[in-house]
Amino acid sequence: MDLNADLGEGFGRWSLTDDDALLEVVTSANVACGFHAGDPESVLAVCAAAARRGVAVGAHPSYRDLVGFGRRYVDASRSELVADVLYQLGALSGLAQAAGTRVSFVKPHGALYNTAAAGGAHGEAVVEAVRRFDPRLPLVVLAGSPLEELAQAEGLRTVAEAFADRGYTATGALVNRRLPGALVTDPAEVAERVVRLVTEGVVRSVDGDDVPVHAESVCVHGDSPGAVAVARAVRAALEAAGVAVRSAVL
Amino acid sequence: MDLNADLGEGFGRWSLTDDDALLEVVTSANVACGFHAGDPESVLAVCAAAARRGVAVGAHPSYRDLVGFGRRYVDASRSELVADVLYQLGALSGLAQAAGTRVSFVKPHGALYNTAAAGGAHGEAVVEAVRRFDPRLPLVVLAGSPLEELAQAEGLRTVAEAFADRGYTATGALVNRRLPGALVTDPAEVAERVVRLVTEGVVRSVDGDDVPVHAESVCVHGDSPGAVAVARAVRAALEAAGVAVRSAVL
Amino acid sequence: MDLNADLGEGFGRWSLTDDDALLEVVTSANVACGFHAGDPESVLAVCAAAARRGVAVGAHPSYRDLVGFGRRYVDASRSELVADVLYQLGALSGLAQAAGTRVSFVKPHGALYNTAAAGGAHGEAVVEAVRRFDPRLPLVVLAGSPLEELAQAEGLRTVAEAFADRGYTATGALVNRRLPGALVTDPAEVAERVVRLVTEGVVRSVDGDDVPVHAESVCVHGDSPGAVAVARAVRAALEAAGVAVRSAVL
Amino acid sequence: MDLNADLGEGFGRWSLTDDDALLEVVTSANVACGFHAGDPESVLAVCAAAARRGVAVGAHPSYRDLVGFGRRYVDASRSELVADVLYQLGALSGLAQAAGTRVSFVKPHGALYNTAAAGGAHGEAVVEAVRRFDPRLPLVVLAGSPLEELAQAEGLRTVAEAFADRGYTATGALVNRRLPGALVTDPAEVAERVVRLVTEGVVRSVDGDDVPVHAESVCVHGDSPGAVAVARAVRAALEAAGVAVRSAVL
Repeated sequence: MDLNADLGEGFGRWSLTDDDALLEVVTSANVACGFHAGDPESVLAVCAAAARRGVAVGAHPSYRDLVGFGRRYVDASRSELVADVLYQLGALSGLAQAAGTRVSFVKPHGALYNTAAAGGAHGEAVVEAVRRFDPRLPLVVLAGSPLEELAQAEGLRTVAEAFADRGYTATGALVNRRLPGALVTDPAEVAERVVRLVTEGVVRSVDGDDVPVHAESVCVHGDSPGAVAVARAVRAALEAAGVAVRSAVL
Repeated sequence: MDLNADLGEGFGRWSLTDDDALLEVVTSANVACGFHAGDPESVLAVCAAAARRGVAVGAHPSYRDLVGFGRRYVDASRSELVADVLYQLGALSGLAQAAGTRVSFVKPHGALYNTAAAGGAHGEAVVEAVRRFDPRLPLVVLAGSPLEELAQAEGLRTVAEAFADRGYTATGALVNRRLPGALVTDPAEVAERVVRLVTEGVVRSVDGDDVPVHAESVCVHGDSPGAVAVARAVRAALEAAGVAVRSAVL
Repeated sequence: MDLNADLGEGFGRWSLTDDDALLEVVTSANVACGFHAGDPESVLAVCAAAARRGVAVGAHPSYRDLVGFGRRYVDASRSELVADVLYQLGALSGLAQAAGTRVSFVKPHGALYNTAAAGGAHGEAVVEAVRRFDPRLPLVVLAGSPLEELAQAEGLRTVAEAFADRGYTATGALVNRRLPGALVTDPAEVAERVVRLVTEGVVRSVDGDDVPVHAESVCVHGDSPGAVAVARAVRAALEAAGVAVRSAVL
Repeated sequence: MDLNADLGEGFGRWSLTDDDALLEVVTSANVACGFHAGDPESVLAVCAAAARRGVAVGAHPSYRDLVGFGRRYVDASRSELVADVLYQLGALSGLAQAAGTRVSFVKPHGALYNTAAAGGAHGEAVVEAVRRFDPRLPLVVLAGSPLEELAQAEGLRTVAEAFADRGYTATGALVNRRLPGALVTDPAEVAERVVRLVTEGVVRSVDGDDVPVHAESVCVHGDSPGAVAVARAVRAALEAAGVAVRSAVL
């Protein structure tokens, strides 16, 4: 099982994630590409640190929305978005290579992740950009999402992802962040849920039923207080359960 | 002899250069990378047009200064600038590859061009970035500048460049833009100067003497009224003089 | 009758509108505030030119979207948008005062214009921002739109606006730009339509019927080829019809 | 004696300063205006908090340099900089008024502070912008700097400022940040120095001599770990010494 987290999400004077601590825990780093976060100098440093630890570097492209941290939908045209994603994949690739590693996967960020997960023009744009950049590059997708199917139909390898600290509905979708049960914050509970997800392929929904979720990677968040503690608890619980924690793409 | 011009220097709704017309004349296109100009969608289109015409695509990185069009010095640290240039080289590379071509050379833009030409920390930063991105990539430099020597000492291939429409001093330097004689605007005169430069290796200085200038590429400007006419006149005069006009790097 | 046009829509090296020519024709200038266009130096110059000619300066705030020229919807929160509009109103106000004039009205730009016209959270945000900035400041609104009613209910003075070169549906709405009949390009036809609008209060719809449209200001576009010619034709036709062309707010 | 600190220096998702804690200590808040930091929504919130506590709001304009946090010199033209500062003064003014307060002084930020302190074109630009915005607005200047004289010669009221935690040379200048003795970090020592500065008008230089420094305001930094503790120590020591801590401009 792969553990991924968003890294490099500062910008110049501002930092957000404890990149060094997270790089000790995760096996895949979703690295900001400059559109929602990630100035080149700190991204280069994150790539170098990931290279030293053998953590896979993934591109984490976003809508162009620095002030909104990429969390706001932007009504870009499909062709605009294809070029925006290509630009970000290339930029991160230049930095990653200079740091002695390379871009090994793509995972869209924030609002682009959510919009693309539903398929549609923005999902198609992400798939087209990855295919034109490097058709062998895996795309991390929400497990069971329309994007998963769309990407596979276009010949991309996908990595299905689940969220360690998010609530699930009875249909296996994520609970809307504005509703109760959207977030699980207790490290022990998060860890237990991830172990069940990995070993049994199910997650307990907010309705109390077990729903099947197939995932090759589990996302742990890095930008909240206690994030590192949760990530460590998840990794420790997986290892205690005998699960090998390693990159899905290296 | 190579002819190069800056292309793709619009941004979203704004355009500046007549890219299609210039691509019929030049053999090398210095393509904006987003920091002074160049939104991804239009850059992708310029790369595709260059690919169709067999024009070499070069990266034209800049200080991060959109409102100043990269014409203002920015006191970046060396490490910051290395990462900024890597980011831009990678970004353009991603778009160029998707357009069926690739980045074949690097030529800094505007204030970065001028500052780097003098060597110093910013010259070193440009050289370091190109070496770390791809040490085989040629760097276009002002003929006779400290950067030319610096880049060669670091093992980079250089392409010495002269300017078709700029006045030269008795020492072979460019006349400061604020002084008389800085710009030559008559297409016939520009063309004649370029022919002498290429066939005799000299340029008439503002003092009236011939000074030696060794150049493998001649820069024609694309962002002024009449730019295309000047570029065409230069190319026609070179061809009439029996000079083969072709890329210095392809 | 007031004639308004968007001005100051360049950014640094890039320009778009022939501001000097348009300032001879219009009575109200919608001046970019920096979020979709409008660097401070050129905005200051536009304000000074408007002051010299006695043209009313209006704030033309936008979503924060430079690369998209403010034409893309951005899913900002209401509170974010209130602050964004306040920031832009203040910024333009600082420049206008230094240029010897002042902000006399507000007209949202591009996607924000369209979204706000429909009312909703973004329409409310625009109204709240204007009220908190200066409750006496008139808001230019699409004639007959939900925003017109919303703004008036909140105590704002509104200026109803019609478009000189846009097609109208049978219900008095604008024809979607992607459909036939969305744009009228012949200067004489545009001028004739505006004269009927002003003198008879009707516009011929794409279905061929006259529909009532009540407008205190007519918008002429400034960023297309021939824009100035159309604007001049509209003004000349109005004056020939005996209509006084003057600001709705000064 | 006035105590001032930089506030509102986050941007969207990123924050830097503990604004609420600092607003309990200082009497003047230098509020970011968007060019080096300060998204409109958080700036509006800082202005509202300052208004509630009776803390004076000052504009803290910067070079346009978000990624460099305004700490990098940018070679702007004088006219460009005048407009940039006017834009920022106006923008903050719009937000401050909506929050129930107003801009009561101006203090340039970062590299602009340092460059302007030396006078020159950028010092003149800052003075011109303040005069054109509101000639009654006081300008906070480095005590004894050329800018102090320049601003007074142009009729501006100045507020001379000293730095609580910076080392001084024998001539009363600040020790370069790259040299030993540039920063004083022990809260008790900082507090003692400020008390001497205020009550005796002298500061102990790095050479060990007392040098005269005349200041009406003392700057405490807000963006380092322990910043709030230092600020509290300074205020407590001043009050224990019988010094009234209050705004220099309200």
